[in-house]
Amino acid sequence: MIVILKNKPDPDQLEGLISWLNAQDIDVHPTVGSSQTILGLVGDTSRIDMNLIAALDIVEAVKRVAEPYKNANRKFHPDDTVIRVGDAVIGGGSLTVIAGPCAVESEDQLMTVAKAVKEAGANLLRASAFKPRSSPYSFQGLGIEGIRLLMKEKEEVGLPVVSEIYDSSQLPLFAEIDVLMVGAKNMQNYALLRALGKTEKPVILKRGFSNTYEEWLMSAEYILAGGNKNVILCERGIRTFEPSVSGTLDVTSVPVLKGLTHLPVIIDPSSAGGKYTYVPALARAGVAAGADGVMIEVHNDPTRAKCDGPQSLTPKKFAKTAESLRRIHSIIHEEEM
Amino acid sequence: MIVILKNKPDPDQLEGLISWLNAQDIDVHPTVGSSQTILGLVGDTSRIDMNLIAALDIVEAVKRVAEPYKNANRKFHPDDTVIRVGDAVIGGGSLTVIAGPCAVESEDQLMTVAKAVKEAGANLLRASAFKPRSSPYSFQGLGIEGIRLLMKEKEEVGLPVVSEIYDSSQLPLFAEIDVLMVGAKNMQNYALLRALGKTEKPVILKRGFSNTYEEWLMSAEYILAGGNKNVILCERGIRTFEPSVSGTLDVTSVPVLKGLTHLPVIIDPSSAGGKYTYVPALARAGVAAGADGVMIEVHNDPTRAKCDGPQSLTPKKFAKTAESLRRIHSIIHEEEM
Amino acid sequence: MIVILKNKPDPDQLEGLISWLNAQDIDVHPTVGSSQTILGLVGDTSRIDMNLIAALDIVEAVKRVAEPYKNANRKFHPDDTVIRVGDAVIGGGSLTVIAGPCAVESEDQLMTVAKAVKEAGANLLRASAFKPRSSPYSFQGLGIEGIRLLMKEKEEVGLPVVSEIYDSSQLPLFAEIDVLMVGAKNMQNYALLRALGKTEKPVILKRGFSNTYEEWLMSAEYILAGGNKNVILCERGIRTFEPSVSGTLDVTSVPVLKGLTHLPVIIDPSSAGGKYTYVPALARAGVAAGADGVMIEVHNDPTRAKCDGPQSLTPKKFAKTAESLRRIHSIIHEEEM
Amino acid sequence: MIVILKNKPDPDQLEGLISWLNAQDIDVHPTVGSSQTILGLVGDTSRIDMNLIAALDIVEAVKRVAEPYKNANRKFHPDDTVIRVGDAVIGGGSLTVIAGPCAVESEDQLMTVAKAVKEAGANLLRASAFKPRSSPYSFQGLGIEGIRLLMKEKEEVGLPVVSEIYDSSQLPLFAEIDVLMVGAKNMQNYALLRALGKTEKPVILKRGFSNTYEEWLMSAEYILAGGNKNVILCERGIRTFEPSVSGTLDVTSVPVLKGLTHLPVIIDPSSAGGKYTYVPALARAGVAAGADGVMIEVHNDPTRAKCDGPQSLTPKKFAKTAESLRRIHSIIHEEEM
Repeated sequence: MIVILKNKPDPDQLEGLISWLNAQDIDVHPTVGSSQTILGLVGDTSRIDMNLIAALDIVEAVKRVAEPYKNANRKFHPDDTVIRVGDAVIGGGSLTVIAGPCAVESEDQLMTVAKAVKEAGANLLRASAFKPRSSPYSFQGLGIEGIRLLMKEKEEVGLPVVSEIYDSSQLPLFAEIDVLMVGAKNMQNYALLRALGKTEKPVILKRGFSNTYEEWLMSAEYILAGGNKNVILCERGIRTFEPSVSGTLDVTSVPVLKGLTHLPVIIDPSSAGGKYTYVPALARAGVAAGADGVMIEVHNDPTRAKCDGPQSLTPKKFAKTAESLRRIHSIIHEEEM
Repeated sequence: MIVILKNKPDPDQLEGLISWLNAQDIDVHPTVGSSQTILGLVGDTSRIDMNLIAALDIVEAVKRVAEPYKNANRKFHPDDTVIRVGDAVIGGGSLTVIAGPCAVESEDQLMTVAKAVKEAGANLLRASAFKPRSSPYSFQGLGIEGIRLLMKEKEEVGLPVVSEIYDSSQLPLFAEIDVLMVGAKNMQNYALLRALGKTEKPVILKRGFSNTYEEWLMSAEYILAGGNKNVILCERGIRTFEPSVSGTLDVTSVPVLKGLTHLPVIIDPSSAGGKYTYVPALARAGVAAGADGVMIEVHNDPTRAKCDGPQSLTPKKFAKTAESLRRIHSIIHEEEM
Repeated sequence: MIVILKNKPDPDQLEGLISWLNAQDIDVHPTVGSSQTILGLVGDTSRIDMNLIAALDIVEAVKRVAEPYKNANRKFHPDDTVIRVGDAVIGGGSLTVIAGPCAVESEDQLMTVAKAVKEAGANLLRASAFKPRSSPYSFQGLGIEGIRLLMKEKEEVGLPVVSEIYDSSQLPLFAEIDVLMVGAKNMQNYALLRALGKTEKPVILKRGFSNTYEEWLMSAEYILAGGNKNVILCERGIRTFEPSVSGTLDVTSVPVLKGLTHLPVIIDPSSAGGKYTYVPALARAGVAAGADGVMIEVHNDPTRAKCDGPQSLTPKKFAKTAESLRRIHSIIHEEEM
Repeated sequence: MIVILKNKPDPDQLEGLISWLNAQDIDVHPTVGSSQTILGLVGDTSRIDMNLIAALDIVEAVKRVAEPYKNANRKFHPDDTVIRVGDAVIGGGSLTVIAGPCAVESEDQLMTVAKAVKEAGANLLRASAFKPRSSPYSFQGLGIEGIRLLMKEKEEVGLPVVSEIYDSSQLPLFAEIDVLMVGAKNMQNYALLRALGKTEKPVILKRGFSNTYEEWLMSAEYILAGGNKNVILCERGIRTFEPSVSGTLDVTSVPVLKGLTHLPVIIDPSSAGGKYTYVPALARAGVAAGADGVMIEVHNDPTRAKCDGPQSLTPKKFAKTAESLRRIHSIIHEEEM
C-alpha cells in the first residue's frame, strides 16, 4: 500500500500515523521528494482499511498495490481450478459448452431443447425456474414446478443442470440442481453470496454489467472465503455508451482474468449480444480469446419463447456454432502445447 | 409501441402478427414508406412483451413509446407524493435533511452525532446496522445490536431513523425502523423489493450506480405494485469513465425525474463525491437543481469512522452546509411562487 | 421518422406541423391512441432536421427510424467494398494483416521491423511520422523525416505504408503514403474528414474511444460524401468504467457493423489491450468475430520504443500470432462457404 | 512515480533500471515487502515516460503520483487566474454569464438576441459562425458572413463575442473575435490547441464528452505551454449509459477542478441537458457547485433555430434564470467571506 502525503504534512500527525501502522505490524518506508512524500507500507496490508488512512488531513491519496482478494488470486494459487460436474470438466484447458433456454417453460420445451443440445455436444443444460425480471409485470419463471422439470430432464435426458438463484431464501429448493447461477444483477447480493459460500455446489458468478474486474473477484472471494472453492466466472456483456446493443461483450476480460485468477472463465454471448444473429460471432470471439467455455441460449421456437427469444439460437444454428467453437479451441490448444 | 419492419416483409408473417395483436385488443396502424414500413400499435401495450415481437424474422426493431411503469408515472398521478415520518415531511416542496454516520458504531458515537445533527436542523437520522461491503474482510455493521441502539436514539434524542436493509430475510428486524433504505447494489434485488412492497414503511430506493432512469423507476414500480406507496428515490452518484472520483453526482436526474414521476427525489452527496471536501458543493448543487432533500454522512470523528470516514462531514461543517441549503431552497421556492 | 406528441396537443400547432411537413413532400400518418398520438412520417426524411420538430411545444419526442447515413449504408450498397493497395486486398472475405511500430523512430528501426513483419506475412506496414500525444511534453514523431523514411522502406522492403494524419494542413506531405490513418481522437475532426473526402486515398478511420456506431458511420459518411469511397473502419477499444485496462476491445462492433455497412472492418488489438500480453488473444477474438483484418503494433525492441512499447509485440511473437489468425480465418471462411 | 515490480525480479534487469533512472537524476527508494517490491522515484519525473518503464519484463505496474501538468496546476500557481474581456471579468470570485444562439443565422436574429441577453445582464455573447456538425448534410454555419455579423454586433450592441473555432486554418478569420471556443469534439485536436497557444486570445476549452479531468487539463496545458495563459475550462455534459438525455452535467467536476487548477471553470447547461426545460435547474446546480460562470443558449424563436432549438431558452426564460443565478452566487459568496 502506498500513502501519498499532502505537501508539508503536520509532523505530529505524521508520527501518529506511523506509530499506528507500526502497532499493526506494518513497516513504513518513506520516499521524500522535493514536492511530495510517499510512504511505502510493508506487511499484511489486507487488514488495513484504506479509508481510515485516506480520511486523515495529511493524506492526499492512498493506493493499494496488492490485490484485496486472496483466495481468488492466482499469485497464491498458481494452478487452474478445475471443476467436475458429472462428465463435464470446467477449467484447465477443456472447452465447456452450456446451452439451453432462458427459462423452463414446459416439459415439452425443456426436453426438446435438452435432447437437441446434448446431441450437438453440450456438456450442461441451462434453464431458469426463477427469473428476476426488471418489470414486475413480466413472466417470473415457473418456480418450484420448473425445478421439478429440471430434475426430470436429468433422469430422462441426462445433462447436468445449471439454474439461476437470486435470493438466499431459495437455496433449499436447489438441493438437486448441479450448478447454481448468480445473475448479473445479484453479483453484489452479499447475503446470497455468503449463503452460497456455505455450500459445496459449483457457482457460476456472472459479472454485473458495470462491475470492475476487482469487484467481480471480490464477489468470488465472498463465496471462496466461506469455504466453497467451486466458482466459475462468467462474462455476459457490459454496459457502455452504445445505445444500439443490449451489451458489449468484454473479451478483454478473458486474458486479464486468466492472469489474475485461477478460476475458470466462461462467456455468455447471448446476454451480451441481445440478438441471435450476433451470437455465433461473439461465441467464437470468446473462445478465441481463451475462455474456458460458453453459455448459449437455445430455444426450439424462439419467436414463442417467454423470455430472451430474440437472443436465442435454434438447435440447428447452435449445433453449427458449437462445431466451430470446438475447431477454434483446438487451434489455440495445439499452439499452447 | 412502434414496430419497424424489415424491407419487404413476408405477407403471411405480417398478417399473422397483425391478427395476434388484434386478438389482444391492440389496433395496428401501418405507415408504409418507400423503403420502410412502420406499425403503430394502439391499446394497452404494457401487457405486450416487446421481445416476442422483436424475435420475429420480419421485424427490424421495436420501440416502446409509452413508459413501462404505471404506478410511478406522473402522467397518471400528477400530484406529488408527500410522505410523513414523525414531524418530517418528504416531497411536495419541502426540503428534507437526513444526516448521520455511515454505520452505527457505538452508543456514544450514535448519540453524539444524533444530537449534533438534530441541533443543526436535520429531520431524520441515518445510520446502518447492517452494511453490505464489497470485501468479506471489512466491517459489516453491528447487526441487531445496531438496531437496538437506533431504538435508543429515538427515545433519547428523538430523530426518526433511516437504516439500510439488504436481504428480504432481515425485514422482521426492522419493525421499529422508520425508513428502510435500499442501497445502490440492491436496486435490482427483486426478492427484497417485493418484500418491501408488502409493508407500509417508507423506502429510500437508491439508484444503482449504473442504472438508467427507467430501470430505477421499474424498481420503484416493484414496491408500488405490491401496495406500498411510500417510495423515495435517492440519486447517489453514477459510475463513469472518470477514475479520480468515487462517483459522479447526476444532478440532471433531478429535473428529469421530477418530470417523469410524482415520487420525491433526494440526493446523497457523500456517496457521490467520496470525499468530504466535495460534499457541500454537491449538496448545494442537488438542492439548486430542485431535489426534495439530501442525505449527508456526518461523523463526530471521521478519521476513526469504521466506514466512509473520508466522505463524512464533521457536525460543524454539516451545520454550515445545512444552513446554506435552506437558503438556496428558499430562493428556488420563492421563484416558483 | 416517428413523432410522439404530448397528450392533448394544440390543434392549430398540430395542423401547422402537418402542413409544414407536407410542404416538404413528407406524408404524415397519425396513430391515435387513448393516451398518446404518434405521427409516422413517410418520404425522404433525411433532409428533415429532427431538432426543429423536437423543439415544438406539442412534441414529446422524435425518433429516427431510417439511418442518417446513405453512402455508408449496406441497405443501399449491399456488396462489400473491396479496397486494393498494391498486392493487398482489404474487405470481401480476405484477411488483411497490418503491422509495424507505433512511430517511425530511425531508419534502422523501421527497416528491421518492416522486413520482419513482411516475412511473417504482413500485407501492409504501419508507422506514424506525426503522433498526436496527450502531453505536449511527449515525443511527437519525426515529422517530415519520418515520411522520408517510409518512402525508403517502400523502395527497399516493399510493403505499402499506413501512416497517421491529424490535421488537414498535413495532407500535402502524405502524397506518397498509401493509406492514411485517422486516429481515435480525430474521428470527429470534420475539417480533416472533409479534406480526406476530396482525395482518393484509402483511409483507415479509427473509432473514437467513446463514439457510437452511428457517429462512426456518420464520420465515414463525411469522407464518402466528398467522393472518396475507400474507407476502412477500425475498432481500437472503447472507454468503459474498468480502470485496469487502457481500453476494452468492442468485438460486438464487428458483426453489428458488417450488417450496417459495406465498408471493411478491422480491429487494432494493441491500442485496445494496452499490454502486449493481451494482444494475441484480442487479435484472435477480432478475427473470430469476423473482422476483415487486424492492425498490430510490432517493435524490434519494445522496451526502448519511443511510444507504445508496453503494447508492442516482438517480431517473433507477431509471427506466431499472425499464423494463428490465418488458421482461425480459414475455419470461419470454410464454414461460410 | 511508483514502480511496482513483479515478484522475484531479475537482479540484473533491476540494477539496469535503477542505473538508468539515476542517470536521469532520479533517486530510487525501494520498499521491499514479502510478496512485493515497490520503487519510489524522487526527482523531476515529469520528463520520464511511464511507458518505457511499464514495458520492462520485471515491472508489474507504474503509477504516477505527481500530476503530469505543470502550467495548469494549482500546486505551482495557487492564485486564481482572472481573465478580463472588455468589461467582463472571468474567474476570481465573479459570476460570468455568457449567452446567445447556437449559431449566427441572420443579422436580425443576432441583434435581437444580443440586445435581449445584454438587457438581462449577460456579460458576453456566444454565437458560432462555423459549426462542426456530426452530419455532413446539416447546416454548417454562415462562415465568414457570420464573423462579419458578429463584428457588427460588437459595434451596435456592444457585447464582446465568443465563437467556435475547429481547425487551425480558421485562425486568421478570428482576429476580431474576443474569445475563441474549442468544442468538445476538438478537445484533443492538438494542431488546433498548439495554434491557439501561440495567440493571446482567451480560449474556452470545452471538455470532451468522455475525457477525464487529467486529459482535459493536459489539453489546457498544450495551450498554456505555448505561452497563452488565458484558458477557461467549460464542462458541457459527459456521455454515460443513460439513453434518455443528450448528456449528463458533471457538477462534481467543479469542486474537483477548482482544487486541481487555478483556471476558471464554467458550465454549459444547454449542451448538457439537451432540452430547454432542464436548463434553469442545471445552470443553478453549476453555480451552486461553485462554477465561475455559465454559458447558456438563447434564441428569439427556438422552434425555428437552425441548430440546438430544443435546448435554447427564450430571452424571457433566460432573464429569469440569470436573476436566480445571481442570487445563488451571492449566497455562496457571502458564506465564503
